[in-house]
Amino acid sequence: MQVHLRKIPLLANLTEEEMAMVRADLRIRQYAKREVVLQKGASGDSLLFLLQGQLQVIDITEDGRAIGLRMLAPGDFFGEIAVINGTMRSASVVATTAVLVALLPRNTALHLFSHSPSVANQMLRFLAAKVQRDSEFRALLSIHNTAKRIYSFLELVKEKKEGDVEVVENLPTHQDIANMINTSRETVTRTLLALVQQGIVKKGTHRLIIIDPEALQKLAQS
Amino acid sequence: MQVHLRKIPLLANLTEEEMAMVRADLRIRQYAKREVVLQKGASGDSLLFLLQGQLQVIDITEDGRAIGLRMLAPGDFFGEIAVINGTMRSASVVATTAVLVALLPRNTALHLFSHSPSVANQMLRFLAAKVQRDSEFRALLSIHNTAKRIYSFLELVKEKKEGDVEVVENLPTHQDIANMINTSRETVTRTLLALVQQGIVKKGTHRLIIIDPEALQKLAQS
Repeated sequence: MQVHLRKIPLLANLTEEEMAMVRADLRIRQYAKREVVLQKGASGDSLLFLLQGQLQVIDITEDGRAIGLRMLAPGDFFGEIAVINGTMRSASVVATTAVLVALLPRNTALHLFSHSPSVANQMLRFLAAKVQRDSEFRALLSIHNTAKRIYSFLELVKEKKEGDVEVVENLPTHQDIANMINTSRETVTRTLLALVQQGIVKKGTHRLIIIDPEALQKLAQS
Repeated sequence: MQVHLRKIPLLANLTEEEMAMVRADLRIRQYAKREVVLQKGASGDSLLFLLQGQLQVIDITEDGRAIGLRMLAPGDFFGEIAVINGTMRSASVVATTAVLVALLPRNTALHLFSHSPSVANQMLRFLAAKVQRDSEFRALLSIHNTAKRIYSFLELVKEKKEGDVEVVENLPTHQDIANMINTSRETVTRTLLALVQQGIVKKGTHRLIIIDPEALQKLAQS
């Protein structure tokens, strides 16, 4: 099977020599829908790339609830934390469609991380952005007012699309949002419904469209 | 003033050439006790190193409460997130003693991050560990039982010292702990006192000594 490695952003600027090393070490695997690709607690023996299909990162809380975290799209890498730290996988990853995944052994990945300026640069930016989001998320959790916590959550996960439209892609289920920000599913449902009725947001397919970004921002900051 | 840059772990393995570049670009500044070294919201124009004294990283919550996060010791670097992402400072840093700080301009720091394997490697490990702690902290916040949340917090911030003694260095104030994990100061005080009375922990100077680590672990996991 021919895999176009230059289409993977993390690998796009490798030298020919580095690319040859990656090509020699890479292993390709297929998973069916609902199969577990990474298991929380397993050893971090490889860096993974999603080539085809869609994956979901899932965390299991102390009391056994599953929280759907982010979705992965083709070209994304995952499993980097356990590879860098030599620790166990900190979350599970499950196939939401049939998927094609590439695995790069830990030592090859670590070599690229520290010796390829382009990979080091992208990886540092990726991790620093993650740290920043986590710190914003922690600030969010300290908001006492539940509705304001939900508004701030939407502010945090929204993305700007073509034509300055703001959307929340792959909106988690109301139960997942509730688990993430310490409230009940009912409160999430009620608060989102009120936003729809006020004409501030609109439900799309697998996404939430923010029609009135200014109004949402005001609510989050009020 | 002679500064021993090789004593700073992040710079310890630079080549002579890289070290000369750092030495040429580095600026040294003094701050008095209680002075603000970094201001949340300011631009991230340099990477900083603490040479002498002690600093505290402080976050200001949405509703204006100050939360004392980690303490910095000589040799530590800070301010790396805003440097990498080109964003604003995400927290403030305040001098808790008179301090001596070295500032490395953003462009020089970014060059080292992607071109020095030793710096890239250390920085990635540092950020990956931070991401992992943040994810553990998020898991902690989803624990409903308050006392269990406090036990888990101690488990998360404890360190192993010489002779396998477990301690929490620079224990934050009860109010800071309360703010960090969404509870009241009274609850933190009451829960810690109970741990002391049960002979599980003991208060030292600026630290909490965990006398019975197994008992604490059991309480956190029960």
